[in-house]
Amino acid sequence: MNDKDYMKLALTLAEQTRGQTSPNPMVGSVVVKDGAIIGMGAHLKAGEGHAEVNALKMAGEKAKGATIYVTLEPCSHYGQTPPCADLIIEKQLKRVVVATVDPNPEVSGRGIKRLRDAGLTVDVGVCEAEAIELNRIFFHFIQTKRPFVTMKTASTLDGKTATVTGESKWITGEEARLDVHRDRHIHDAILVGIGTVLSDNPALTTRLPNGGRNPIRIILDRHLRLPESSQVACDQAAKTWVFTTEHASSEKEEALRMLGVDVIRLRDYSIPSILMELGKRRVMTLYVEGGQEVNGSFIKERAVNQVITYVAPKMVGGKNAPTSVGGEGISSINQALELEVIDVVQVGHDIKITSLVKEG
Amino acid sequence: MNDKDYMKLALTLAEQTRGQTSPNPMVGSVVVKDGAIIGMGAHLKAGEGHAEVNALKMAGEKAKGATIYVTLEPCSHYGQTPPCADLIIEKQLKRVVVATVDPNPEVSGRGIKRLRDAGLTVDVGVCEAEAIELNRIFFHFIQTKRPFVTMKTASTLDGKTATVTGESKWITGEEARLDVHRDRHIHDAILVGIGTVLSDNPALTTRLPNGGRNPIRIILDRHLRLPESSQVACDQAAKTWVFTTEHASSEKEEALRMLGVDVIRLRDYSIPSILMELGKRRVMTLYVEGGQEVNGSFIKERAVNQVITYVAPKMVGGKNAPTSVGGEGISSINQALELEVIDVVQVGHDIKITSLVKEG
Repeated sequence: MNDKDYMKLALTLAEQTRGQTSPNPMVGSVVVKDGAIIGMGAHLKAGEGHAEVNALKMAGEKAKGATIYVTLEPCSHYGQTPPCADLIIEKQLKRVVVATVDPNPEVSGRGIKRLRDAGLTVDVGVCEAEAIELNRIFFHFIQTKRPFVTMKTASTLDGKTATVTGESKWITGEEARLDVHRDRHIHDAILVGIGTVLSDNPALTTRLPNGGRNPIRIILDRHLRLPESSQVACDQAAKTWVFTTEHASSEKEEALRMLGVDVIRLRDYSIPSILMELGKRRVMTLYVEGGQEVNGSFIKERAVNQVITYVAPKMVGGKNAPTSVGGEGISSINQALELEVIDVVQVGHDIKITSLVKEG
Repeated sequence: MNDKDYMKLALTLAEQTRGQTSPNPMVGSVVVKDGAIIGMGAHLKAGEGHAEVNALKMAGEKAKGATIYVTLEPCSHYGQTPPCADLIIEKQLKRVVVATVDPNPEVSGRGIKRLRDAGLTVDVGVCEAEAIELNRIFFHFIQTKRPFVTMKTASTLDGKTATVTGESKWITGEEARLDVHRDRHIHDAILVGIGTVLSDNPALTTRLPNGGRNPIRIILDRHLRLPESSQVACDQAAKTWVFTTEHASSEKEEALRMLGVDVIRLRDYSIPSILMELGKRRVMTLYVEGGQEVNGSFIKERAVNQVITYVAPKMVGGKNAPTSVGGEGISSINQALELEVIDVVQVGHDIKITSLVKEG
């Protein structure tokens, strides 16, 4: 067992907590002395002990002179719990191995500095790529202050989202539609354009056999056309936020507010400023289920981090049948939004392709 | 080991000959006596011994009283080799287990009848689905007298085959383009519309690092506009067949014939009659690399058996960017061409989805 092996174990411990640490990152820790593991831990839930605290609790008095492995730089500030760096110093560990530094530029490196100042050996960067990957969404949010944006599309093998007559029910099968609800469940917010609301009047809720968490419903609605009778405006099933401009009708705003809808007016009505506002409101993950115009705007602004494409094994043809991303489009292939496929699975009869937008 | 186990072994033997038996099917055979395998064989090459001949050669004198497993009904007619049914009778086997009957309706069942008439026990249908699947293309050709049609498309994650400006070089990566050449290599013919020739002047040859077999190049060219200077007309790299109507210019035909191009005039210029003509000319496999109009015609006529879709992890957007299948399109989702995904693989950075059109 070397540093990498112990760090991989710490990463595995962290991975087990997926879905239960939000808004905190997943973190794991292992304490080793004389070649034996004397402590293991993970951060289980926001407000509870950090990974190091749990691992050191298991190690007890033996921690003195030991090495602690932790997948994220130990904190140096008082949050809901005391700083982990101080605990490590107090317990008299000898060496600290860190996978990656804190992504928050305001505190990044401070925990490591405090440990080094106290005379401990600190090694940084063991399994760094895996550690960043593990908390990809958290890191994105901390660094950009914007939600991690996942665009979901569904089309036929020939790239159509509906037939030439606009019929889209159903391109994908039941299992794929259920899978979409599982993805709604794990997102903080879901976004559509007003066009989708006007044409389909969707509920945009999570409908899973055993219930599920409803994301906040975000409607892009420049002219504040959202009908008071629409499901998202009046069903009270989840929060609904409508983004509009400064020029939208105040009476309409008032009527929507009476229904509990939050109307957000933006001086700069654009995708980047909408994302910035969502970040301020602590929306960490956004699931875009737009029609082709909304999707076109996101692609144009390169405001997408991940794309989930359901491909249904059907062909409908039609030069004028709609596709998932409209708008003006990018004119040169060299300028295309480049992604990397990270997962391909069969969901019922359909194929689900998950791709990450390449950085830079 | 039961009947199914022995037949599976025979199927495995057959499978090893993929690509080397054309125009014959792949066939495997196993001879069993007193619970021991005494012979194994496969048909290796057209003109050489059938699977039963090879398996019985291995069995030698022991064949008397044995059971022979064969993945396809033994033949009863003199072809390039004597009938296998006669050989089985002559060698005094006791029982014959057949996976599936001969797909040719004119001879189907005759071999089995001859064996039964001679007093042998014949069981049919063991692993039948796998046996039909193994020789899917051969069966299709024998039964329909038309080539097995594979449509190849390549598009972005958002379903585009080019940007709004028509730029399509390159949507997919180098590995996917090489893979297309591997598929050209295993097809008898490749088909494009005249539009593709006029805009791209492609060679439509197989360009693989270690060479490759060039498919016959088929051009759909209603008005016989094929330029004498085009690569397919004058490079002599492979046969070129041009399908046109009765009204096309005779002088142009003459000029193309001088270059070695075969001009085929059809009274009924349609996809079905083109496929019928190709079947008559012993084209068993057709690879359609059409633009959106040609693809649209094939989909409209439901004249496709398999679709290979390369999906490139790129997004270009654009309401007016082209997609892989144009034409009028199918208006109702219920009428869509339904397929079943049989294979999904990553080819370089791209995804290759192979789907079979559902029968009926």
